[in-house]
Amino acid sequence: MNISLNTEHVLISDERIEKISAFVREYINHCVSVVDGGGYDEDEASLNCASDMRIQQDVADMVNKKASSKLRYIVVCGIGGSNLGTKAIYEAIIGTVDPYSAVRPKVLFVDTVSAHLMMDVAELLKDAVSDPEQILINVVTKSGGTAETISNIETLNHALSTHMGDITDRIVVSTNEGSKLWDAAGDAGIDRLAIPEKVGGRFSVFSAVGQFPLRAAGLDVDAVLKGALDMRDRCLSSSDNPALTSAAVTFAHREIGIRINNTFVFNPELESVGKWYRQLMGESTGKRETRDGVEVREGITPIVSVGSTDLHSMAQLYFGGPQDKLTTFVYAKQLPTQVKVPSELLFPNLVKDIQGKSYKKIMAAIFGGVKKAYEKNDQPYMEIDMPEINEYTIGQYLQFKMCEMMYLGKLLNVNPFNQPSVEDYKSETRVLLSS
Amino acid sequence: MNISLNTEHVLISDERIEKISAFVREYINHCVSVVDGGGYDEDEASLNCASDMRIQQDVADMVNKKASSKLRYIVVCGIGGSNLGTKAIYEAIIGTVDPYSAVRPKVLFVDTVSAHLMMDVAELLKDAVSDPEQILINVVTKSGGTAETISNIETLNHALSTHMGDITDRIVVSTNEGSKLWDAAGDAGIDRLAIPEKVGGRFSVFSAVGQFPLRAAGLDVDAVLKGALDMRDRCLSSSDNPALTSAAVTFAHREIGIRINNTFVFNPELESVGKWYRQLMGESTGKRETRDGVEVREGITPIVSVGSTDLHSMAQLYFGGPQDKLTTFVYAKQLPTQVKVPSELLFPNLVKDIQGKSYKKIMAAIFGGVKKAYEKNDQPYMEIDMPEINEYTIGQYLQFKMCEMMYLGKLLNVNPFNQPSVEDYKSETRVLLSS
Repeated sequence: MNISLNTEHVLISDERIEKISAFVREYINHCVSVVDGGGYDEDEASLNCASDMRIQQDVADMVNKKASSKLRYIVVCGIGGSNLGTKAIYEAIIGTVDPYSAVRPKVLFVDTVSAHLMMDVAELLKDAVSDPEQILINVVTKSGGTAETISNIETLNHALSTHMGDITDRIVVSTNEGSKLWDAAGDAGIDRLAIPEKVGGRFSVFSAVGQFPLRAAGLDVDAVLKGALDMRDRCLSSSDNPALTSAAVTFAHREIGIRINNTFVFNPELESVGKWYRQLMGESTGKRETRDGVEVREGITPIVSVGSTDLHSMAQLYFGGPQDKLTTFVYAKQLPTQVKVPSELLFPNLVKDIQGKSYKKIMAAIFGGVKKAYEKNDQPYMEIDMPEINEYTIGQYLQFKMCEMMYLGKLLNVNPFNQPSVEDYKSETRVLLSS
Repeated sequence: MNISLNTEHVLISDERIEKISAFVREYINHCVSVVDGGGYDEDEASLNCASDMRIQQDVADMVNKKASSKLRYIVVCGIGGSNLGTKAIYEAIIGTVDPYSAVRPKVLFVDTVSAHLMMDVAELLKDAVSDPEQILINVVTKSGGTAETISNIETLNHALSTHMGDITDRIVVSTNEGSKLWDAAGDAGIDRLAIPEKVGGRFSVFSAVGQFPLRAAGLDVDAVLKGALDMRDRCLSSSDNPALTSAAVTFAHREIGIRINNTFVFNPELESVGKWYRQLMGESTGKRETRDGVEVREGITPIVSVGSTDLHSMAQLYFGGPQDKLTTFVYAKQLPTQVKVPSELLFPNLVKDIQGKSYKKIMAAIFGGVKKAYEKNDQPYMEIDMPEINEYTIGQYLQFKMCEMMYLGKLLNVNPFNQPSVEDYKSETRVLLSS
């Protein structure tokens, strides 16, 4: 059940891809040594999260301690790298319409400071929950000082404790060991999970950041990690390395001026996976300077499209407009074949050839039609074939893309692990907040 | 309560904007004549939807006939222009977490053919609904032959009628008078609402397409239409015309090579408003040929960012990366001031200056910080100030943007009303579907 990368239609020669790839081989050796070392001292430390038994044990212990059969809602207070990976996996597996929230815990994501969102979430929870055991709040902030996240946990804690009494033992904080929040939570007797210092937000999904809320919600986190590890092997190997190939293709197109990267998923439940990748690529490639301090204004703008929805929204631009995009299709062939258009129709003879057909077949025809059109129009694309959407394949995908981004950083000669320009607005915000 | 456009920081001179605007004046006179005529013969016919009393009457009659106090779920089966405007207004007002679904009808959107989505929606409805009166399905397809939409209504109809008996009188079809679906629905005794032939999907929100499901859900559609009409007056006038100014600014940046347009909303409930605009701009500007048949590959790629969420995802690219974007901030100052960080904190002294502050003030500081950073970095932006998010202001916004797109089409010398390149994949799909 391995996901595979197809580069047949990238419109770049194999020789060129091979030549570009050669530049990264030494760096891959470095990544291998990071994994062999197993620690958290290097920028690439995130590679070690999925195999870290200590993290798994800490998370399992915490889930045992906090998640009883009474649990109904898990609220993740986090923003950016602190929730995008968790949300990606959760929605890929559970979907966005969850009809089973009465029988399994439902995860709610509270990210920005929105009065509307906060009122709705507080109202929903006050209506659905009366016993603290029914709720679990995971506060996720690596630095420990994210204004939105701290504002939201304070406000939610106030609303819920007014409603049903003290809930501090229903809060779990995930943060850097040694952050101010780590200490403050300790002082308040609130349980904590550590995020390794060198594991940045956008690379943190396999740390406690993703593991804890997903395991508490009953997802198969072991399969996620297994997928990550199997893919890590592939992405650290010298042949059939999808991360290296994908990075090389992206770089080749960047060299000829293609600066928009379109992740085009054909399963709507993968939209948040696309948004996770959007952060990964945006923050990792968008740099004012090279590694050597030369001002370059590097960066590739990631966009996310959802098929077939966006065929009715963006296809006209993609086919008719400027040829400034490299597209990566992501498609799981949707194995459940029991969903089909009935054979007796309300409106017979309206749309040809759908009667009695499974959704799987209809979507395969739409996806196939789109690929054919790309080919006829000489538009480059890669294709990621995800045989099925499950924890194991999503774990693979996320690890694949994190490795790809490290290699792309190498090729672009930028640091994919930092985000210095974010300070541009943060310092201005602090001034305004204090006035 | 008028929304306003601020162009102080667009980095284009007033003279240039004025000069560009002058090219559109004659076309605006044409639009005025379309409105004066009041009919549906011209490409700009959508301008007449909000003032069409016949549409309002038809919709009101249909709502009276179909929506009793028992109504709990409205399912909109439509894709692209058939649901994006409805979803934009619905989510702007109701939000994405709706804690009140027990006391007011909830709208579900079913767009693409997804086995996962269809199973979840069918499961949710079968669990929540036992009497046909509790549900209403609005099938929206202008052409009447959209494969996804017809597949979904057939499948949903089958699932629900198996569950609770015949539901055909709980279906309302919105389509072109004269489409095959119009006739088929008539033959099956299913109620219908007409979409005027010349009103294209992305311009159709003020027709029955948006009016019917939103009015059935209890939204104040009269206020939406009032907002549209008040804005129409402004956008057809010769001074203080936000649509003309915004189109001119966008064109001026397009001329100097800026081909990414970033709608950056600072209220998360406006994300779907952004996605509606994404279709509007993508389909209207992305053209292989000019009006005169010259191949140009015109087009501006619209992207949507959500503040403050995407500051933790895309800000590094926006501030550090290539300067290839024109940004339009959209911000409603979030009047509910009762949502605030408590004055007694769980984690005191962790984040400075949030204690006791309203969400409104915190978000204003973040938004202000972002604008300051754009200014310091010489990055161009427009600002749309939406005093409050309500039906009236959203109606204004949508009309503003539809007029802007007509004027931008004029400036780019492309036809903003067609989408010929969509055929590229549709014909290929039909071949695959029949095999």
